[in-house]
Amino acid sequence: MCDESILDLDELNEECGVFGIYGHPDASQFTYYGLHALQHRGQESAGIVSTNRDKFHVHRGTGLVTEVFDNERIRKLKGNIAIGHVRYSTAGGTGIANAQPLVFNFAKGELAIATNGNLVNANRLRKELEETGSIFQTTTDTEVIAHLIARSQAPTLEEAVKEALGRVVGAYALLILTNDQLIAAEDPLGLRPFSMGVLGEAHVFSSETCAFDIIGADFWREVEPGEMIIIDQDGLRTSRFAPRAEGKICSFEYVYFARPDSNIGGINVHAARKRMGRVLAEESPVEADVVTGVPDSSTSAAIGFAEATGIPYELGLIKNRYVGRTFIQPSQELREQGVKMKLSAVRGVVEGKRVVMVDDSIVRGTTSRRIVNLLREAGATEVHVRISSPPVKNPCFYGIDTPTRDQLVASSMTVAEICEEIGADSLSFISTEGMVEAISGAAGGTKRGYCLACFTGHYPTAIEDEMAIGGKR
Amino acid sequence: MCDESILDLDELNEECGVFGIYGHPDASQFTYYGLHALQHRGQESAGIVSTNRDKFHVHRGTGLVTEVFDNERIRKLKGNIAIGHVRYSTAGGTGIANAQPLVFNFAKGELAIATNGNLVNANRLRKELEETGSIFQTTTDTEVIAHLIARSQAPTLEEAVKEALGRVVGAYALLILTNDQLIAAEDPLGLRPFSMGVLGEAHVFSSETCAFDIIGADFWREVEPGEMIIIDQDGLRTSRFAPRAEGKICSFEYVYFARPDSNIGGINVHAARKRMGRVLAEESPVEADVVTGVPDSSTSAAIGFAEATGIPYELGLIKNRYVGRTFIQPSQELREQGVKMKLSAVRGVVEGKRVVMVDDSIVRGTTSRRIVNLLREAGATEVHVRISSPPVKNPCFYGIDTPTRDQLVASSMTVAEICEEIGADSLSFISTEGMVEAISGAAGGTKRGYCLACFTGHYPTAIEDEMAIGGKR
Amino acid sequence: MCDESILDLDELNEECGVFGIYGHPDASQFTYYGLHALQHRGQESAGIVSTNRDKFHVHRGTGLVTEVFDNERIRKLKGNIAIGHVRYSTAGGTGIANAQPLVFNFAKGELAIATNGNLVNANRLRKELEETGSIFQTTTDTEVIAHLIARSQAPTLEEAVKEALGRVVGAYALLILTNDQLIAAEDPLGLRPFSMGVLGEAHVFSSETCAFDIIGADFWREVEPGEMIIIDQDGLRTSRFAPRAEGKICSFEYVYFARPDSNIGGINVHAARKRMGRVLAEESPVEADVVTGVPDSSTSAAIGFAEATGIPYELGLIKNRYVGRTFIQPSQELREQGVKMKLSAVRGVVEGKRVVMVDDSIVRGTTSRRIVNLLREAGATEVHVRISSPPVKNPCFYGIDTPTRDQLVASSMTVAEICEEIGADSLSFISTEGMVEAISGAAGGTKRGYCLACFTGHYPTAIEDEMAIGGKR
Amino acid sequence: MCDESILDLDELNEECGVFGIYGHPDASQFTYYGLHALQHRGQESAGIVSTNRDKFHVHRGTGLVTEVFDNERIRKLKGNIAIGHVRYSTAGGTGIANAQPLVFNFAKGELAIATNGNLVNANRLRKELEETGSIFQTTTDTEVIAHLIARSQAPTLEEAVKEALGRVVGAYALLILTNDQLIAAEDPLGLRPFSMGVLGEAHVFSSETCAFDIIGADFWREVEPGEMIIIDQDGLRTSRFAPRAEGKICSFEYVYFARPDSNIGGINVHAARKRMGRVLAEESPVEADVVTGVPDSSTSAAIGFAEATGIPYELGLIKNRYVGRTFIQPSQELREQGVKMKLSAVRGVVEGKRVVMVDDSIVRGTTSRRIVNLLREAGATEVHVRISSPPVKNPCFYGIDTPTRDQLVASSMTVAEICEEIGADSLSFISTEGMVEAISGAAGGTKRGYCLACFTGHYPTAIEDEMAIGGKR
Repeated sequence: MCDESILDLDELNEECGVFGIYGHPDASQFTYYGLHALQHRGQESAGIVSTNRDKFHVHRGTGLVTEVFDNERIRKLKGNIAIGHVRYSTAGGTGIANAQPLVFNFAKGELAIATNGNLVNANRLRKELEETGSIFQTTTDTEVIAHLIARSQAPTLEEAVKEALGRVVGAYALLILTNDQLIAAEDPLGLRPFSMGVLGEAHVFSSETCAFDIIGADFWREVEPGEMIIIDQDGLRTSRFAPRAEGKICSFEYVYFARPDSNIGGINVHAARKRMGRVLAEESPVEADVVTGVPDSSTSAAIGFAEATGIPYELGLIKNRYVGRTFIQPSQELREQGVKMKLSAVRGVVEGKRVVMVDDSIVRGTTSRRIVNLLREAGATEVHVRISSPPVKNPCFYGIDTPTRDQLVASSMTVAEICEEIGADSLSFISTEGMVEAISGAAGGTKRGYCLACFTGHYPTAIEDEMAIGGKR
Repeated sequence: MCDESILDLDELNEECGVFGIYGHPDASQFTYYGLHALQHRGQESAGIVSTNRDKFHVHRGTGLVTEVFDNERIRKLKGNIAIGHVRYSTAGGTGIANAQPLVFNFAKGELAIATNGNLVNANRLRKELEETGSIFQTTTDTEVIAHLIARSQAPTLEEAVKEALGRVVGAYALLILTNDQLIAAEDPLGLRPFSMGVLGEAHVFSSETCAFDIIGADFWREVEPGEMIIIDQDGLRTSRFAPRAEGKICSFEYVYFARPDSNIGGINVHAARKRMGRVLAEESPVEADVVTGVPDSSTSAAIGFAEATGIPYELGLIKNRYVGRTFIQPSQELREQGVKMKLSAVRGVVEGKRVVMVDDSIVRGTTSRRIVNLLREAGATEVHVRISSPPVKNPCFYGIDTPTRDQLVASSMTVAEICEEIGADSLSFISTEGMVEAISGAAGGTKRGYCLACFTGHYPTAIEDEMAIGGKR
Repeated sequence: MCDESILDLDELNEECGVFGIYGHPDASQFTYYGLHALQHRGQESAGIVSTNRDKFHVHRGTGLVTEVFDNERIRKLKGNIAIGHVRYSTAGGTGIANAQPLVFNFAKGELAIATNGNLVNANRLRKELEETGSIFQTTTDTEVIAHLIARSQAPTLEEAVKEALGRVVGAYALLILTNDQLIAAEDPLGLRPFSMGVLGEAHVFSSETCAFDIIGADFWREVEPGEMIIIDQDGLRTSRFAPRAEGKICSFEYVYFARPDSNIGGINVHAARKRMGRVLAEESPVEADVVTGVPDSSTSAAIGFAEATGIPYELGLIKNRYVGRTFIQPSQELREQGVKMKLSAVRGVVEGKRVVMVDDSIVRGTTSRRIVNLLREAGATEVHVRISSPPVKNPCFYGIDTPTRDQLVASSMTVAEICEEIGADSLSFISTEGMVEAISGAAGGTKRGYCLACFTGHYPTAIEDEMAIGGKR
Repeated sequence: MCDESILDLDELNEECGVFGIYGHPDASQFTYYGLHALQHRGQESAGIVSTNRDKFHVHRGTGLVTEVFDNERIRKLKGNIAIGHVRYSTAGGTGIANAQPLVFNFAKGELAIATNGNLVNANRLRKELEETGSIFQTTTDTEVIAHLIARSQAPTLEEAVKEALGRVVGAYALLILTNDQLIAAEDPLGLRPFSMGVLGEAHVFSSETCAFDIIGADFWREVEPGEMIIIDQDGLRTSRFAPRAEGKICSFEYVYFARPDSNIGGINVHAARKRMGRVLAEESPVEADVVTGVPDSSTSAAIGFAEATGIPYELGLIKNRYVGRTFIQPSQELREQGVKMKLSAVRGVVEGKRVVMVDDSIVRGTTSRRIVNLLREAGATEVHVRISSPPVKNPCFYGIDTPTRDQLVASSMTVAEICEEIGADSLSFISTEGMVEAISGAAGGTKRGYCLACFTGHYPTAIEDEMAIGGKR
C-alpha cells in the first residue's frame, strides 16, 4: 500500500496526511507515531513543527518518516503542541522545498500550516497575491492560504483564518499552529477525511483514525464540513466558516487510499471493502478455481468475493517487500529477461487454475495488463478480472493525483475493450450504486453523501482553475 | 515476516539464506535480486562475492540488502560467477565481522564460502584446529569448514571439500566460490532447503525457490542430501560425499520460515499452510464470529481455518509497516500509555465479536499474551487461539535460533496452563501427525521425511557439542 | 583559518562569501570551486542556484562545500549562469533555513539572491513589511531586500532592485540571479570586498580574488561602492544607485578574514600582513630568541616581525588539522588532563627560549591566555605577545560576528591590564596609524579609505537598529 | 601534509602509524586522539581494538580517524588497554579488509596486532605457511607475523612472539594486544620511529612523539632496536629478541614524513628541517627576490633557507585546504582551462620576482614541473628549485611507498637533466653529508645511524623477496 507505489505510475496516489496534537509533553513523539501510521498517504517528505509556547522547532526532510526523524531530532522538537505532515511524491515535484508544514513569520508572529487536499482556485489567488508584492517559496496551495491569512487585516488570527478560508475553494483537512494555538479546519464539503480524538488531557487530529489506534488515543468525532476548531489555553472552541451542508466524502478513500483499520464516517474501511467484494461477486459472478487479490489494497475485497462465491481465496500474487527507494532497479534488459520488480505470481497456486483476480481500480490499464500476464506466465488457464470500484473516467481536482482524462483508459474504452486491452478472459467493474451501498453497508454509515466525481464527472464544486495534471500541487 | 522480527524476541529466527549463480554477465546483480527475495531469512548483514575469473570482488555490510548495496557497489562486483548470503542477527552477535560470504587466501588460491545452517560438532573441530596453529577470524561454523579445506592435503579443491564435509556434522546448504568454480553442497540429511535452477545458460542456487521467480529463472531440482555439485568451464558435475539416505527436511520451514511463494520438496508453502489451517479446524473446531491471522506468517493458515469452518476471515490485526531498524521505539512509559509498536487490533472488526486468532507457533508465550490482550482491549468478547504447529518443546541445533529449553513455554506447561498464561478462552495446537499430513497434502510431496526434533525431541544426528543458546552461530 | 574557527568562540568570524558566474557551460562547477576557495568565509552552509534560462536548479545544505555537493548534485545544477554562497555559523542560528542563496517566486518570475554583509536598518524595514502582509521565511537581511524588490511597482527588475537598495543601509556584496540576468551590487561605502573577473567569454564575481586564481579566471576590477552591474544577453551594463563616495573597505579583511593570496584594493593580503608585522616590530621591539605566529592567520605577520628584528621565525605552535565538526571533543576532565584540542606548543622549539608570539587580534582574551599558557607549559621562559591589529573596542555592525562590547576585553581594560590577564611578559598592539600605513604600504594601494569602526568607534553609517549580538543575521 | 597526498601520485607516502596505551580508563579515547595526531602517516583506514580484560572491542573503517569514529563508537570500545592504527592508501589496495589492527582467535585466545613498516621476507614466509594449511585474510605482512605466533609451540605468548620476530626481516614498530597484555617491539635496526611515554599511571606508545603532546603525555624514551616491551598486571618488562646494534633510523622521516613537532632520536623535526634549509643555502646559494616553500612539508626548510640567505620568505604558494576525498575533482578539460586542484601560486607575491622554490624531495618530477609552471604563469621571472634531500634513486623496502626505480627521475637523469625536465632556471639538491649533518645538528642527536638506502642504494638488510611496487603491502 505504501512505498511500492513510488515505483508504479499506474496507481492513484493520495497527496498527503496531517496529524496534530495539543497539550501533551511528548507532542512531537506522538506526532511521529501518528505520521508513521499515515505513511501510506505520502512517502516523499515528512515534517513536524512543535512549539513550547516560546518558539517553533521545525524539522522536515525527504523520505519516509523513519528516515527523516531520529531520536535526536524528535528530542529537539520540544513543546506540548505539534503538527505534522506526510507528502506524496508528485512526478516533477520539487522535493524538500515543498515539504510541509510550511513555516512563516508574519506580523502576528510565527505560523505553521499543513494541509491534506487541493484547492481549485489557487492559481487565480496566487496570481493576484504576486501582483501585489507577495513572494512565494513553494508551489503548494497551502502557501496561498498562508498569504491570505497574512494579508488579512482582521484583528485576530482566528478571524484572519476564517477570512482566508472564505476565499479558497477546494478540498482540505487543515492544521495551523502558532505559539499558543492549534487550529483545525475541514473544507465546506468534507471531501477529505479528518478526525478528532482524545489522549488523556490532550486533543489529537488526524487524517485517519488508524493514527489514534497506534498511539492509544480514543476517537471522539470527525471535524465537520465547514467547521473550524481552535484549541488554546482557554480550551476548545468550535465555529463555522461555511454554512452546514451535506458532506461529500471522497469515495476513493474507501476503495483504495485509507488504511483498512481506519474508520471514516463511522464505517470501517476493511469491512467496506469486503462488502464491495461481496457486492461485486453478486453483480458479476464467475466460474473459477481460485480467487486472489492484488496485494495489499485489494485483499479485503478479494476475501469478500471469495466468501460470497465459495471459491477459495489464495495468495496467488506476492508482493516483494523492501522495494523502496534504495532498491537497485533492474534495467529494461533485465526486466525483459524476467526480473520482477514488485509482484510475483505464485506458480504453485495458480498453475492450471481458473483465477479470479480482484483489484481495487483500473487507471491507465497498464498495471492490470502486466498482472494478468504474470498470472498467465505462471500457468493460469483463465484470468477473470473483477474491479471493486466503477470505471475511473474523470480526473480528480481534490487532492488525488490522477492522470489527465486522455490517460484514463475507461474514459475512452468500453469495458469490453479494456478487457481485451488487459488480456483478461472477462472483466467486470462494480456498479456505482453497488459501491455506495457496499460502503454504507449493513453497519449503518453516516448521512454524509459521497464525492463520486471520478466515476460520474459530477464535481461537487465549480472547477475554476484550468487544471492540467502538471498544475496539481 | 521480516524486519519486524528484529524487534520481537518471541519469534523463531532462521539464521541465513544463500544464493549463487554461475555463467551470467550480470551475476552480481542477479545475486542482489536473489538475496532480496531471501531477505526474510536474515536481516543483519548481507554480502556478495563475485569473480571475473581473475580475482574476487567482495562487498559485505550490516543491514538489509537494499542498504548494503547500491548501483555503484554492484557495478564493482564484476564477473559472471557470484555467491551471496543474508544473515540473521543473533543477540550479542558481532556484526560485520561474521558477515558472509567469508573470503580466504590459502595455498590453492582465493576461496569464498557461504552457508545456511549450523554444525553440531563445530566446537570440537575448532579447538583441534586452533591447537595446531590455525587462526580464526570469526565465530562462524563456516570458518571451521574453510580451515578443514585449507588443512586438507588432497590434490584438488573438490577432494579437499569432500574431505572437509566428511568431518562435519550438522545442517547446511553450502556454496563455495573460487576464481573458476562454483561448488554447492547439501548436508547428508537434507535438513535445510536448497534448490537449483536455470536462467538461460546460467545455473542458479538458492535457499528458496522464491528467488528463482523474482529473477525469471526456472526451477530444475533440489540439491540432494549428501550431494556436491561442481560447475566450471567443463560444465556441471555431481557426486556424493555421503551415502544416499532419507531426507529430513526441517518442518518449521513450512510452518513459519519459508516464503509462502516458495516450493520445498515440490510443495508450495502457502498451500501447505492453508492445509494446516484446515486440519487445525477439523481437529479443534470452535464457535466464533471471525477468524483472524497474526500477520504476516499466519495469514495462509487463518484463511484455511476460515474456509474449513465457514467463519468469515477478517483483518482483525494490522501490522505496522516500516517498523525497521530506524524506527524510534517508544519508551516503556509511552508503551504503557498505549503506543503500539508492531500490531494493532482493528476495533471495527473485533468489537463485540468472538475471535479465532490463528498463529503459527508459540515459543515463549509472551507475544501470544500480548496479542490476546490487544484483541480484548479492542472489544473482542472471546479469544480462541489456534496454533498451526505442535508445541515447541526442544531447542533446534540445525540453524534455527530457538531459546533454551527452559524458556520454551511448552517444555514446562500443559496446553491448559499455556492457555491460562496467555489469557485465551481456549487454545489448541495442531497434532504432529496432522501437521505432517497437511504438509504432504493432497498435492503429493516428495518421499522425504521431516525433521520434527523441536516438537518431538528426536534429533536426526548426534548432538556432539554442548550447545547453549549463546554457543549458536 | 577555517573549520577550526567553529570550535573557538574567541575569534571574529566573517559571515559569508558570494560567488557568481555568467556565461559558462560549467557554471555550477566553477561556482563550486569558487565557493571552495571562499570556504574560510563561512562553514555552516553552502548553496548554489543555477539556471538554464528556463528554470532554477537549487541545492543548499549545511556543512562544508565538499560535504554539501557531490558530482551528482553539481551535474543537476544545469545552466550557464549560477550564483553561490557560503555562510558562517552564528551561535543559535537556524541551520538550513537560513542557507543562501534564497529563492523566491514573485510576479516577475523566479529570483535568487545571495549577500555577504549586514544591514543596519533591516529590523525596521522588516517590521513595516510584515505589517502590510509580507511573510518571512528566514531571519536574514537578504530576505528584506527580496521583499523590497517584490513590493516595488517599478516596471523592470533592474529598477526594482535600485529602488530596494535605495532603502537599505549597511554593508553588502550582493548577487541576484533570474532566469536571464545576473546582477551584482556593492554597498555605497564599499565596506565588503567584491571583485569582478573574466574567464574566457564568461564574467565572474567573488567576495575575494583567491576564487579567481583557483579557477584560472583573470581579475578585472572591483565592483565599486554604490555600483550595480547587470549582465544579460545584451551584454554587461553598469550604473549607480548611490552617489560616488570614498570607499570604506573593512580593515579587518586585511588583518584576519581574507585569504593571504587574495588582493583587496590592489593590495595582496599576505604582503599587507607581513608589513603589519614589520611595523609592529618597529613600534614595539623586544629582546627574544624566537618568533612564532599563531597559525594560520598570523603566520605572515610573524614572518614580517622576524625579518624586521632578525629574531629567527620558528614553528612554535602547531595546529591540529582535521579538527572539524566530526571530531570527538575531549570532555572537560580530559582537557584538564592535558588533551589539546586545537593548538600544541612545540617543546623542541620553545623550551628554554624567550618567545615572541604574534597574533592578529585579541577579542575576549581567553584564547590568548590559553596560548600563552601552552607556551609556558612547553618551557618558554618568557612570552611576549605582539598583536598585528589595534585593540578591538567596538562591535561591528557590518557583517562581522563580534561579541557585544562588554565581552571585548579591550573595551574595559588597558593594555597593561590585558597583559596581566593573559599572563604575558609583555604585550603590544600595532597603532591604528601603523596598521593603515602597513596596509597601504609601499606597494601603493587604492585611494579607498578604511572602516576602522571596531578600533575607533567611528561608524561610517548611522546605526539605526538596536542591534545586540543576538540580533545579527 | 595530509589528505591532499591522496590526490598526488608524485609524493612519497608513509604506510602507517601505531598508537597504544596500557592502564587508563579512557584508553580508547586517548588512542583516538593519538591516532588523530598520527593522521598524516595514513589516511586510508583507521582502527582501534580495546579490551576490558574480558573480551576485545573492535572498530575499523576506511577514512580519516574523525570519519571512522564517533562518540558512540568510542564509548563502545571499553577497557583500559587499547591499540590503534592508521593506514595509508596504497594504489589498488583492498580497503577495509586490510585495515589494522588485525584481530585473531587462536589457541592462546584473542590477539590484536598492528604494525608500521614492511617486511622483506614476507612473501616466502607466507608461501610456507599457506602450503601447510594456513588461511590468510589480508595481504598484510602483519598477518604473517600473526600466523608465525599462532604456529609457535612456545609455552607463552611472549616466547611465541620472540620466536616469530626471530624469523621475520624488515622494518617495523609493532604493537600486540591480548586481554591482559600489551607488547611493543621495534625491528633490530630501529628503522621506523617508535616512542614510549607516560600519562599518569598509564604507559603509551606511538610512532611519533607528537601524539604524546596532544594528549598531555610525557615522553620517556624510544623503543630500542631489537627490544620487546611487555606490560601486564605485573608491570613493565623489557627484553631483547635481537642483539644490540647501531640503529638505522629512516632519514626520510626527518625530510618529509614526520610532523614538524615530533622529536625523533631526541631531534626536533622542524629544527632539523630548518637546518637542512640552512645547509642547502650554504651549499647552493642563489641570487633571488623571494623564497617560498611548497606547503606544508617544505615550510621549515624554506624558512631556514631564507634566514641563511637573507632573501625574504614569502607565501608564494597556497595550498587549497579541504581538498579531501569528497572534493569534486575537475575534469581534464577543466584542468586545462586552469582549474587548480591543490596549489595556487600567489600572483601578488611572485609577479616580476626571481623565486627560490624550496621543496623536500623530487620523486617522479611531475609535481615539481607543475609547480614551476604555476609560478611562471603567476609571473615569476626566474624559478630556482632547491631540494632539502639528496636525489631519490632507489626504492624503499621498509615501509615507504616509493615507485619502482624506473619511475624515479633521479635514477636515470642527471641533476642538469632534471632541471630541464622540470623547467627550472636552476636546481640543486642538498648533499647526503649535508643532510646527515643537518639532521644531527648542533642540538646533538643520538648515536643512531641513518638509513640512507633510497639515496645511496645501500640497504641495511638483505632484500630477500622479489619486490615490485605491486607487491608492497
